[in-house]
Formats: sequence, structure tokens, C-alpha cells
Amino acid sequence: MADRLGPARAEPIFDRVALIGLGLIGSSLARVVRRMNLAREIVAVDASDEVRARVTALGIADHVTGDLAAGVRDADFVILCVPVGACGAVAEAMRNGLKPGAIISDVGSVKGSVVAQVTPHLPEGVHFIPAHPVAGTEYSGPDAGFATLFLNRWCILTPPEGCDPAAAAKVRAFWEGAGSNVEEMTAEHHDLVLAVTSHLPHLIAYNIVGTAADLETVTESEVIKFSAGGFRDFTRIAASDPTMWRDVFLHNKAAVLEMLGRFAEDLYALQRAIRWNDGDALFEHFTRTRAIRRGIIDLGQETAAPDFGRQKPDEQ
Amino acid sequence: MADRLGPARAEPIFDRVALIGLGLIGSSLARVVRRMNLAREIVAVDASDEVRARVTALGIADHVTGDLAAGVRDADFVILCVPVGACGAVAEAMRNGLKPGAIISDVGSVKGSVVAQVTPHLPEGVHFIPAHPVAGTEYSGPDAGFATLFLNRWCILTPPEGCDPAAAAKVRAFWEGAGSNVEEMTAEHHDLVLAVTSHLPHLIAYNIVGTAADLETVTESEVIKFSAGGFRDFTRIAASDPTMWRDVFLHNKAAVLEMLGRFAEDLYALQRAIRWNDGDALFEHFTRTRAIRRGIIDLGQETAAPDFGRQKPDEQ
Repeated sequence: MADRLGPARAEPIFDRVALIGLGLIGSSLARVVRRMNLAREIVAVDASDEVRARVTALGIADHVTGDLAAGVRDADFVILCVPVGACGAVAEAMRNGLKPGAIISDVGSVKGSVVAQVTPHLPEGVHFIPAHPVAGTEYSGPDAGFATLFLNRWCILTPPEGCDPAAAAKVRAFWEGAGSNVEEMTAEHHDLVLAVTSHLPHLIAYNIVGTAADLETVTESEVIKFSAGGFRDFTRIAASDPTMWRDVFLHNKAAVLEMLGRFAEDLYALQRAIRWNDGDALFEHFTRTRAIRRGIIDLGQETAAPDFGRQKPDEQ
Repeated sequence: MADRLGPARAEPIFDRVALIGLGLIGSSLARVVRRMNLAREIVAVDASDEVRARVTALGIADHVTGDLAAGVRDADFVILCVPVGACGAVAEAMRNGLKPGAIISDVGSVKGSVVAQVTPHLPEGVHFIPAHPVAGTEYSGPDAGFATLFLNRWCILTPPEGCDPAAAAKVRAFWEGAGSNVEEMTAEHHDLVLAVTSHLPHLIAYNIVGTAADLETVTESEVIKFSAGGFRDFTRIAASDPTMWRDVFLHNKAAVLEMLGRFAEDLYALQRAIRWNDGDALFEHFTRTRAIRRGIIDLGQETAAPDFGRQKPDEQ
């Protein structure tokens, strides 16, 4: 597996890409589009004065604007990089600027809701190919982005039935150009898979960090000091962007509640094993989970270095 | 904060240290004792033929034996590095070999139960100073150890009331010599602090990995593939040693059940907010948890690199 981006394309895939929202994902896209020559021109559209000023200062886009309809004009590829809950309003605001034949995509962690929000606002003759790059860090904003964020990560496309195969192929080529592995599935299946691999873990992490902060008998400074015992691993994802995650939970409600129900049921079984001293049940469960970790390392979605490489084992 | 071990001591603290159990912790101790000259001689005691053979091959101890009473003979410092549930049996088996004035310690993640198991077996005139280095990786066994495992990590001592201050001071000097920061508290408070910073996170991680593996609608390979969305962070600690963790939960039952109860209560509140579309409650909760992450990074118990440094942001 390549650990760096290869050489830039000789010919760009798109003439003009408009990125709507220049947070971690949007600004990383701007960087990789330029680095890999995925589009001839980059238009950055963001509602925040502060973000636009940073994007201009960073020099990662050719044009920077706060006007949605103007920003998407003449773009043959438009990517919504805004929180899931904002997609409908953005689609409505940009619709009059869209060029016939333009391809619209997004990067949302929920697909069913985004499709439902965006589709009604799209004029005839534009192609909507939803996408979700499964990549990120706990940082936000245009300064947090970097060109290799998508390298060796999966990007899931959920092309609707009956969509233009040429449009879907171009979106695939775009993400492959950013270094990603591309997989296709239905929006419905996507939302179920991500509920367990991403949404539930974030909710659990947010929850345990809150529980720890509320204890009367253990101080917050003790929680922080002794976090290397395991707690630390949860705090990273509990530091993720609050707006983005609020929207994810509200817009993938059914799948998240289903996964939460299963999680709680399983947790009660472990709780019962502890209460009744059922060491064999605990041991059996803990042994089974090791194999899954092995699978993740083998697939290159994680390093095998102990402790995430946070401390390097040196010579004995 | 030093990021490497300093020069070795001119004079060792102990003459002969006996390490009981050469897993990740015991074998890391063997390495740092020699590297930092914390003791003149290292005796490695392990019940497993296989482990003894590896320790001999690695050359990390001066003497290797399977006989507990023989192994602790003439040792002025004995450290139990076995699963918490085995401490009573080990103390009983070694008692006749203990030298008068010897200091006994351990590395267990639970302190109340270890004290209750070990104390009845100790002869008059030996000093028991329990310790818990809050450090580890998800790997096990003598090959997994390394000398810097304890560097900049906290080691908690729980010296019993009325213990010999000179003995406690030597154990403190030993852990400081291994690069750790030392803190003292009661065994009872330790078990509460660790229940939330370590035991509960491990239980939650074990649980979510099991829940994900049991889904009928999402395949295990999908869970593994798309784990970068958050799930991955849980799998590391769910790959930890099953025997060690079974014992931790059974031996810190009261505190773990208490923390689990609070966690479940808080999770129901988040679940309810999702069900009733209470975005403000979610946003407020998710904002609060960010600050705790910041505290952990500031205290040097974590790196600020995005994504644990698993992928390096390079130039734009």
C-alpha cells in the first residue's frame, strides 16, 4: 500500500470544482485537488468571514466567496462539505447557480438524510452522486486540513439507482485521485454500517468522557492524570466537532438507536457476568475481540505499533 | 518533560530484585532495571516453560527460575507482575523463601483486593508497598516489553497506614528511576479512580467490539474496513490481555458496577436527546467533552498530533 500520494495527474478530471464549506474535510480536499491536479480551478465557498480570510491567507483556493449561487457558477463539480443538517439549505441556496450537467456530491457521514434533503432542490440535468470519505481527525477548520487525509482511507459512494454511470465514474476517479479506496453501496446500508463503525463509537466516547467529568469522588485532574490506563483512547473522538456530530445523530436516528439498543443489551450481559463472578464468560468475550483488532491492522487501517506509536519501544 | 531515560544510576537501589511474572510489565521492568542500574541482580520467576525460555533467550535477567520460593530467596525487592487474581496464591507459594526485611510490591490494576489477598501470607518483618504503574500496551508476553514503557507515566503507590517510611521511599525511588512520576493515595481511592480511567473504558471497548461482531446486517469485514470512522480507537484496548482483564473486573467489582451504573444512566440521557431531536442538549454535551481532551494533551499524557500520529500531515 502506497504511503504517499503519487505524481499529479497530467490532465485534471474536472475544470472547476466548487467546495462548499472549508473545514477539515473541505480544506483537505482543496489541498489534494491542487497537489494531484484533480481540477483546473478551485472555488472555495464559505459563509464565515473568518474561514474565508484563513483560506485566502493559506492560498489553497483560486477563488474565495461567501455567495453560494455565484460560487457554484461554471463549476462542473460541486462538493458539499458542510454538517449533514445544513445540506438541504445549501442545496436550495445554490440551485440557481448550478450549471447544466454539473455533478453534485457531498462528504456527509449520513447518506439517507442528505439524499432526502438535497434531491428536491436539484434542477433537471445535474447529477447527484453522494460520497462519504471515512477519514478525519479530531481537529476542525481550514488550518487543520492536509492533503493526505484521504490517503489509503475508504470513500463510500452511494450512487442512486438510475444515475448517470459516467458521472459516478468521474466521482470515483476523483476520490481515487485523492488516494482513497472506493466502495459502493446503497445509502441505507451505508447508514447502518456507519452507525456501528463510527456513530455509536462517537456517542459512547462522548458519553464516557461526560460521566468521568461528573464524578464527585474523583477529580477531573485525576481523570486526566491517569488517563493512560485506557480513558485517553476515548477522549480523541470525544473532541470531534460538536455541530457535525449533533447533526449525525439527529439525521441517522433510527440506525443509531438500533445500535445503541444492542450495545446496551450486550453491556448488561457483561455487567451481569461481573456481578455473578462469571470469569469464564468474561474471558471468552475478551478473547474473541482480539481477533477483530488483528483484522484492522492487517487491512492497513491502523498501525501495529504498540500504543499507537505514542511511545516508541527502543532497544532494550 | 524528558522524552528519554537519563543516565543509569551510579549505585543501585536494591541488591537483588525478583520479578514474578515476565509478561509485558515484568519484562519491561527487567529491561529498565538493567538499563538504569536500579538493582545489582535480576531474578526472573515464571511458571511457564515457554516464557522462561524466551526470557533466557532475550538475556534480560541474571537468573531465571520456575520455583517461587527459590526465586525470591536473598531478594531485597520482590515485585508481583501477575494477574490480580493470582496474587494470593503467589504470595502463599513464595512466603517461605522471603528474606527478613524484604520489600514486596506488585503492579496490579486493583489495589484493595491485592492487599487483602497478599497481606495474610506475609511473614513478620517484610514490607508490603503496593504499586500500580499506569502504563501498558495491548501486547502481552516477554517479547512485548521495552525499557521506556514507564517513562513519563504515572505510578500510583498505596502504602498502607503504619508502613515503614524507608521502604516506601525506596519503592518510590525505584519507580522514579524507571522514569515514572509517582503519586500516593489510599488503595480504596485508587480503585475508584482506576475504575473510571481504565476499567470502565476497557469494558466499554470490549463490549462495543463484541456488539459490532454480532450484527447480522453488517459484515465483520465491513466493520474492519470502515473502522477509521471511530471504531478503530476502541479496538486497541479491546485487544488487551483477557486473563488480566477478567481478573480486574472480578476484583474491582463494586467500583466497576458503580461506574457502569452512572455510564448507563448518562447514555440513556443522550439516547433520549436523540430520540426527541434535542440538538441543543447534544451540542452542549459534545462541547463540554472537548476541554477534557485538551487537559490530557497539556499534561503530556498524549500527543496533540491529529489521529495519534497515525498519519502525518505533510506540507500542503
